[in-house]
Amino acid sequence: MKPVKSVLIMIAMRAEAREFIQALGLKQEENAFDEKLPMMAYSGKVEDLSVVVVLNGIDKRFDVDNVATQPAVLATYVGIQKFNPDLIINAGTAGGFKKADHEIGDAVVSCDTLKFHDRRIPLKGFDVYGIGSYPCIDMPDLTKELSLKQGIISTGNSLDCTPTDLEMIEKNGAEIKEMEAAGIAWVAWTLEKPFMAVKTISDFIDSHEPSEEQFIKNLAKATKNLSDTLVKIVHYLNWQGKQG
Amino acid sequence: MKPVKSVLIMIAMRAEAREFIQALGLKQEENAFDEKLPMMAYSGKVEDLSVVVVLNGIDKRFDVDNVATQPAVLATYVGIQKFNPDLIINAGTAGGFKKADHEIGDAVVSCDTLKFHDRRIPLKGFDVYGIGSYPCIDMPDLTKELSLKQGIISTGNSLDCTPTDLEMIEKNGAEIKEMEAAGIAWVAWTLEKPFMAVKTISDFIDSHEPSEEQFIKNLAKATKNLSDTLVKIVHYLNWQGKQG
Repeated sequence: MKPVKSVLIMIAMRAEAREFIQALGLKQEENAFDEKLPMMAYSGKVEDLSVVVVLNGIDKRFDVDNVATQPAVLATYVGIQKFNPDLIINAGTAGGFKKADHEIGDAVVSCDTLKFHDRRIPLKGFDVYGIGSYPCIDMPDLTKELSLKQGIISTGNSLDCTPTDLEMIEKNGAEIKEMEAAGIAWVAWTLEKPFMAVKTISDFIDSHEPSEEQFIKNLAKATKNLSDTLVKIVHYLNWQGKQG
Repeated sequence: MKPVKSVLIMIAMRAEAREFIQALGLKQEENAFDEKLPMMAYSGKVEDLSVVVVLNGIDKRFDVDNVATQPAVLATYVGIQKFNPDLIINAGTAGGFKKADHEIGDAVVSCDTLKFHDRRIPLKGFDVYGIGSYPCIDMPDLTKELSLKQGIISTGNSLDCTPTDLEMIEKNGAEIKEMEAAGIAWVAWTLEKPFMAVKTISDFIDSHEPSEEQFIKNLAKATKNLSDTLVKIVHYLNWQGKQG
């Protein structure tokens, strides 16, 4: 992996990105993309490091963020086309597990590979394709230096979790459940860009309380910790880049 | 809707596309896309009508077609960027229902809107966003002239069908279940391109036999009828385009 001089941070929701954008003083880039596309870009510098945040944008009919993998895939593609980054980070909030000793707000970095838990295709070859298993980079110095947990991330297009989803997440050996990472990792892998994900825990899968109720209650804490963690990561990347 | 002089036909699998490509004598366009992308394009003419088929391409690790919505979204985007068609058709095989009087091989054209059954997001606004409900064009003359059935199509990323999937498909009022259409319809809607889908039935959802076993058994019949139907549709579009 070549030295990181530019990083593209993919975030699905405005609420997940706001604090980080403010913390770094990133400015919105007007006309970054085809005007019909909903994606939004914010850019700036951390000393020598170029930082761009791309958001999936808003569904104008319902005034909500374009969550789930389909917009994330397209946002990542146009983000790479426009900014040609050295590294792609997918950042966001996610579901964790009490049994994995997660706490609300914990930051977890991707390890092993990025997997899907909602692409069940029981035909030879398609079964493993469906799960995906797209690579992510291993940055042991970063995770050690910043005291970040690591875990396998599993992606599906729903916020809730059916028994089938849970079974697949367990088969995937995953302890983080979220809604975009494997789609983004697929685009990064296709275009041969290094990829990592960092997620902060907003809800527990193994809780009697529905994910959506936990998510609303814990979003502020999870996004605060997401911003703090991302700030540390970009400063680390800048420091590392300067070492050559 | 302006007269259709060019049509982009999005097909996920090589096996679904082969007969149609041969029937029209379409030729592969080398270097249609960024060389890192797996998508493939085949183009030709039906008299005055330009016809392009874009396939999602192959996962080089597992040698299988890139099915499901994530590659379909990206393929549609790059297909529109490259060919700027007047109309996008998503064609493929799909699951139908015995109780809807479907028969294996039946061709069904999209009506109403394109919906997802595996984006369950129980938060205000996100719930309806998740289902999607992206528009498709209504071509009553075409469906009548070619004696095609119409039905609501519901999209998910799995070939199998869990009880939760079935419940969502029923809530969507859908009688066709497949794996790409709503993702493609989202891109078409975003880029303001008219969209329709045509699917031929390869398996029954309301059968005791697993979808994958039916799919393998019926694929030849379903793809033959898909090709025959697409040939009729492109000839109809060419005839209609000449009427001005």
